[in-house]
Amino acid sequence: MVATRNPVNLGAAARAMANFGFSRLRVVNPYEVAFREARSAVGAAPLLRQAEEHRTLNEAVADCRLVVGTTSVGHRELQHSLRRLEYGARLIRKSLAAGPVALLFGSEKFGLSNEDLGHCHWLMRIPTVSQNLSMNLGQAVALCLYELVRNPKAATARPDKIKPALAAENEQITALLLDALQFSGYVNPVTARSAEEKVRRLVRRLNVPGRDAPVLLGMLRQILWKLRDVPPH
Amino acid sequence: MVATRNPVNLGAAARAMANFGFSRLRVVNPYEVAFREARSAVGAAPLLRQAEEHRTLNEAVADCRLVVGTTSVGHRELQHSLRRLEYGARLIRKSLAAGPVALLFGSEKFGLSNEDLGHCHWLMRIPTVSQNLSMNLGQAVALCLYELVRNPKAATARPDKIKPALAAENEQITALLLDALQFSGYVNPVTARSAEEKVRRLVRRLNVPGRDAPVLLGMLRQILWKLRDVPPH
Repeated sequence: MVATRNPVNLGAAARAMANFGFSRLRVVNPYEVAFREARSAVGAAPLLRQAEEHRTLNEAVADCRLVVGTTSVGHRELQHSLRRLEYGARLIRKSLAAGPVALLFGSEKFGLSNEDLGHCHWLMRIPTVSQNLSMNLGQAVALCLYELVRNPKAATARPDKIKPALAAENEQITALLLDALQFSGYVNPVTARSAEEKVRRLVRRLNVPGRDAPVLLGMLRQILWKLRDVPPH
Repeated sequence: MVATRNPVNLGAAARAMANFGFSRLRVVNPYEVAFREARSAVGAAPLLRQAEEHRTLNEAVADCRLVVGTTSVGHRELQHSLRRLEYGARLIRKSLAAGPVALLFGSEKFGLSNEDLGHCHWLMRIPTVSQNLSMNLGQAVALCLYELVRNPKAATARPDKIKPALAAENEQITALLLDALQFSGYVNPVTARSAEEKVRRLVRRLNVPGRDAPVLLGMLRQILWKLRDVPPH
């Protein structure tokens, strides 16, 4: 975090780091010396207290093998490769095998200075809508860290643990519901055949969870029991 | 945003919405009535002013075809499918074709209430490190919206516009550098042959950008010009 003005953002950065399993926060020339007490570092107070403070960026990134700057671009002329977060994070993950990587965030107002950018191998930008380039610093940090730990496989895997109802249970529900509809006069003998098919399909479309099948069956039995009590016209 | 306590977070949510191209903010029972003036809505003040305010969640989501709750899980017992952000966002994107989707965020302290959860089709969680479940609300909103607009193709595409130097330029650099090394005595006639190969490979590994090739050549020519001036031993 280079020349950060608002300690709230240093706290927010620390919190996001703790959320996603990062631990080495380095702070270069913060505006407020007392940033370590920022209350926004919920759950990350130790991380913020242990943050290294450096007077120069050069010193802060000395032991890193890759230095990546973040930017919202704006109108400044770039002399660097500029990569979208999705791709940049992938490159960073690969580079981590070779050694530490520094991810730089500039000040809230001006971002990284041209001198700061000189220390970067390349730049990364968050793909915001063009009219609204500027992001909140704490949110930007959270996004970059999230993208670094994001699991692409989780996007396709379906880790659902809710088991759907058995076909037999769906058929029981269908039968009881049909009975209830007949007793209540919703289905009459003329339409009974097509009604049965309609109800069967409707019940399947509900995707009843296995856990809910006995509950639904209990409800229907109770309703049927009551319906049978009603005197015929 | 349901029962949000801190207007700063409503502003941060509005800002993230503007960053990623979302526009319909709905607020249910905020703690502070004057939330519309939150200064944290940098660049999103109109969005925040136009936010719809509702007294009940039911009313706020009435026109939506899918209602998704966000949760940090904690220890509460879930009766819903719980999906990781990567997968949940994919489902939401698909559902958007069928109609509006509501994405719910609960209060900073307690999240969504059990009653709120009753209105949800399923729940979504941000994949944080388990020991640090709780995220800052504004950061959580930004992450969910980013994942919704994130472009998976951008992770593999390489949109670099920096052209590498031509082979001819690399060879010129190699030749001039070798000359300079010979003049300076770094390379002697005995090692000259292996030195040439080493320098050639080194220059290729540098991946000189096309734009930088003439600059490097100019530097080397100047150094050579000066070296030729040095009187021999």
